Order: sequence, then C-alpha cells, then structure tokens
Amino acid sequence: MFRTVERTPSGVRLLDQRKLPQAAVYITCKTPEETADAIRQMVVRGAPAIGVTAAFGIAVAASEAATLDPGALDRRIAEACELLAAARPTAVNLFWAIARMAEAAREFRAAGCGNAELAEALEREAQAIHDEDLAACRAIGRHGATLVPERATVLTHCNAGGLATAGYGTALGVIRGAIEAGKKVRVLADETRPLWQGARLTAWELMEDGIETVLITDGSAGGLMRGGQVDLVVVGADRIARNGDVANKIGTYSVAVLAKENGVPFYVAAPLSTVDLACPDGDRIPIEQRDRREVTEPFGTRIAPDGVGVLNPAFDVTPARYVAAIVTERGIARAPYEASLAALASGA
Amino acid sequence: MFRTVERTPSGVRLLDQRKLPQAAVYITCKTPEETADAIRQMVVRGAPAIGVTAAFGIAVAASEAATLDPGALDRRIAEACELLAAARPTAVNLFWAIARMAEAAREFRAAGCGNAELAEALEREAQAIHDEDLAACRAIGRHGATLVPERATVLTHCNAGGLATAGYGTALGVIRGAIEAGKKVRVLADETRPLWQGARLTAWELMEDGIETVLITDGSAGGLMRGGQVDLVVVGADRIARNGDVANKIGTYSVAVLAKENGVPFYVAAPLSTVDLACPDGDRIPIEQRDRREVTEPFGTRIAPDGVGVLNPAFDVTPARYVAAIVTERGIARAPYEASLAALASGA
Repeated sequence: MFRTVERTPSGVRLLDQRKLPQAAVYITCKTPEETADAIRQMVVRGAPAIGVTAAFGIAVAASEAATLDPGALDRRIAEACELLAAARPTAVNLFWAIARMAEAAREFRAAGCGNAELAEALEREAQAIHDEDLAACRAIGRHGATLVPERATVLTHCNAGGLATAGYGTALGVIRGAIEAGKKVRVLADETRPLWQGARLTAWELMEDGIETVLITDGSAGGLMRGGQVDLVVVGADRIARNGDVANKIGTYSVAVLAKENGVPFYVAAPLSTVDLACPDGDRIPIEQRDRREVTEPFGTRIAPDGVGVLNPAFDVTPARYVAAIVTERGIARAPYEASLAALASGA
Repeated sequence: MFRTVERTPSGVRLLDQRKLPQAAVYITCKTPEETADAIRQMVVRGAPAIGVTAAFGIAVAASEAATLDPGALDRRIAEACELLAAARPTAVNLFWAIARMAEAAREFRAAGCGNAELAEALEREAQAIHDEDLAACRAIGRHGATLVPERATVLTHCNAGGLATAGYGTALGVIRGAIEAGKKVRVLADETRPLWQGARLTAWELMEDGIETVLITDGSAGGLMRGGQVDLVVVGADRIARNGDVANKIGTYSVAVLAKENGVPFYVAAPLSTVDLACPDGDRIPIEQRDRREVTEPFGTRIAPDGVGVLNPAFDVTPARYVAAIVTERGIARAPYEASLAALASGA
C-alpha cells in the first residue's frame, strides 16, 4: 500500500505523484524549502495532503534548528510557515495546517518550553494533523456511504483519494466506505486535464484496491449523465466558503451544472479543515493560474501553435446551489450551508 | 494557404491533419481504399470535408476503372461507395456525398453515357460538391456574422474550420464572416480531448489568419462562461436531426448546457448537407466509439494504468432546446426546427 506523505528520520517522504502510474517513486524533502518546492511542483497535491505535508515541513524545520538559540529557532519556524504558505494559493488546508503549527509553537513557547521540547511538540502536532486527517477520511467514508445506492455508478473528477489526503480519501473515501458497507460501486473517472489526475491517480489507486474503474475524457461526462449512466457525482474540495460555495479542480463546476441539468445528485466530500468560515463566498477564493505549458505541452509534446494565448486556471468555483450535500467527518451538511457548516464546525 | 482536400492528377490530395500543428504535410490517396483509410484514421476529418473527400475518392475510382468494361466500372463505383460509407458512421455528409455521386452515376448511365463520359461526369460532380461546400461556408459566414456583436469573445469546441470543410469553415466561417464584416472577435478554443482538434487545428488555422486565439482545457469553458467571459458559442455539426438535435464532437453537449445555464447563446453552423431530414431525433444518430488508446496513450505516452476500463465516444447529441439558432448557407433556422430546417432544405 502506498503512503502519500509521512515523516521519516531524514525528512518528509512523499510519493512522487508526477511519476504515477508508471512508477511509484518516493522522494524525501529535507528542508521546508524542499517541501514547499514539492508542493509547488505537485509532487504532492490534494488539499488535505498538502496541509499534512506543510505541517511535516515545519516540524522538520523545528527539529533541524533546535540546536540554534531560541530566537533563531523561532525565526526559522516563522520563515518555514511563510514559505510554505506561498507554495500554492487555493487550498485552505495548507493555511489551516500552517496556522495550527504556528499556534502550537506559540503555545508551547508561552508554556516555557525549550527548543528540544518545542521541536518535539511540533513533531507530535504534525503527526496529529496527519492522523486526524486519516481518521476524518474514514469518517467521511462512513457518512458518505449512506448517500450511495446499493448498486451505483459514481462519477468523480480529479483525484480526491488516498493520494490527496493522509490516506483513504474524501470523495474516494465515500466510494470506499460504500464498498465496505457492502454496496456495489463502479466508478467513472474524469481524466481531468491538464494534469490527468483522474487518469494517472484516481484510476491507479482505485485499481490497486480492485475497484471497477472506467476512464473518460472530461468532455464525455455530460453525455453519459444525459444517457442515464451516472447515479451520483462525488468530488473533493480545495476550499469551501461559509455559504457552501466550493472551489475544486478546474472542470468541477461543469460537472456540477451537468449533474443538476440531468437530475444527478452532486456531492462534495471534505474534512472540516477545508471549510473556510472566514471566506463569505466562492468569489473571494483566490484561484491559482498555472503554467501555460501544462496545456500546450502535455508530456513535452507540443500540441498547439507557438504564440497562442492560454488560460490555465487550476480551480473553479461551484456555487452552493448545485451542491446536494457536503460530507464531512462530523456528518452531512445540507443547504442552507451557512447554518449547517457552522454547526458542524463548532461541533454542535 | 492550406488546402484541406483537392483532386490532383494522381489522386485525392489531403493535408495530413494528424501532423498539425508541427508540420503541414500532404498525402495523396490513389484509390478509394486509401481514401477510406485516410478518413478512418482521421488524416482528414470534419463532416463536410469527409463528404468532399469521399466524393473525390469515388471520382478517382471511376477514372481509374474507365478502361474496363461498363459492368466492371459500375461495380467498381458501387464498391467504392460501399467502402467509403463504412469509414465512419456519424457524420451524415459522408453518406450524403456518396449518395449524390451514386445518383449521378445512375443518371449518366441512364442517359447513355459511356465509361469515359461517366468518369468525367463524376469528376465534375465531385468538384461541384467541393466548390458548393466552399460557397456554403462563405454564405454561412455572411449569415452568421449578423449574430456576432461588434466586439465579442466567441467560444468554439473542436474544429469546424477550413480544415473541416472544403475551406473557410462553418463555425470558424461565422467568426471569419464577423471579422470580414468589421467586427472585433477574440476566440476561446476548447482543446477538445482526446484528439486535440481545438489545440492542434483550430488554434493553428485561426492564428494563420491572424485571429486572436486563447486555448483552454475543455473543463475550463464552464467557469469562463460563469465569469462572464464568453459572449457566444458557435460550433459545427456532424449530423443534425429533423427536430434540430445536433450530433457533434464529444463535449459539445456539455458546452451547450453550460451556455444555457449562463445565458450565453449557443449557435450551430452547418451546411444543409449536414441536416438529415430522414432522422427524426438525435437519439437515432449512430455514435462512433473509438480506440481506447486515444484516451489512455496521448502521443504514445501511457497516462492510465493497464486494464482500466475506457469509454471513448467520438460524438454526443445536443438536444435542440439548447440551440439558439442553426446557421446554414440559406439562412438562419430558429426553433421550432422541424419547420425551419425543412423550409430551408426545400429552398422555401
């Protein structure tokens, strides 16, 4: 079984997702700089996974700088937080995890901890973020399974699986949860251009688990829904605004509109660390624009003429009205999301 | 300027569209068998263009077999019609052009023509199909230009350009017509997986004409429409049923639904040879399923795990209710299409 992200004695060990499905190769980031680079270059991706990765990157920084004087250690932690926060802009789990690590550092210092204790505390905090994410995914799977019919064809977009989390997955966690509950599930995986997370990652990890998977181009999803071949859609999220608007991989909005038009329920599965209650609606979520070559040069083959313009937004926003439910580790939120998400977040 | 398809003394000369945009290479099909292969392998594609190509393929067969006895020539023509008709199933222009050539052969034989006269007549008929298609595209451009605002961003899917026709294009003909009418047009080109006709062909031919073109992934179109960045959509068609349902490149239905949801007019541009009055609705249109490797091995790079299921329909059907207008060479059809298309087809 693969490990998406883990702390090893030598650093933050990541499964290099750029190489999948041809090869399962691991790399180890020995500094927060290398960790930020790995996030930026999408060695690791998926909102929960990059949050966990950043937390480990800060723990690495603290452990390495523990021999310095306390002021220098604190500056190194602050620097690590800053450069990891600059790695990617859209997924809020990154900022959530960094803020949680920074807060832990402040608290332990305020409690009078020395460097060694502080570094150890940050290692524990990062591991807790990892372990809680895995537990959250399993809980999402249990809650989400109730939404899946006994026999279902489920369409998903991008990869919100074990590769996008500490393990088990959010959207794919719902699928795994349904199968563990004895349901028969077949998955339609959108390939998800430009980086093919559906083809390279979702199909790979589902087939590793022996789950029936059919790959389609992004443009095929609508026609299959119109043909009655999709029972439900479930996707992950990079950030959910207070009102239930969902930022997720580019193309998600299209899937949501097509689902609504065809009477197919569209579900979002995400841990509460993905919900940004400080963000009132989806239009305030910063959307990352990525390199034009992701579109014009897939795998180094130039497919478009020189000089053509390119727009390559990595994410889009699906307004809450298209979302039938949001599955979290504490239960299922329904519209109106402003109330239901706030209640789940507060543990009410 | 490129020539998509033409009759030369040695056969049917085609611009090999599989090689674009890297190289503009021409190949010559010397027999109807080679011509059918070129259509099947998508050396040439686009509903009007494959109709013209098939007509030339039949003319080649007749000219080559003109030295045989009359019965043998007639059998060779019938055989050419049959094998060309088997090349691809969805675009009706192919069958329309073949039927027109077969009918011409019958008429000239019935009028007492010998082999040499018959072969010449079929050469003239094929050239007429070519020339009429080019004229139809220019007329589509003139009619369609009236639908385009003075300054407009136009989204298109796949390639319905000069490369899909005898020249000038249908959807891209509307764009060219608008520009010739003095309007300022910027084009958003969907890349159009799995074969990237948008990236490889549409972007290439528009940029050859100096038309501002921005390439996007298929999954980006919806978000751009939601963001108010698209003024209208125009696409071509492979077959239009009597009721106005439109079969076109896979992904077209998604674009149409997203356009409707965002109040963006969705136009179809096609010659009347694309209208199949014998076909009552879109669900009766045969949809070609193509090789799984188009999805799993773009340019020979394997992007999906072995053994994954694949669905690769080449076309989908957009119900007429999503279509704001159908632009033909005889004018613009509006709903109800059963009446408006029949009227245009009859020349009324």
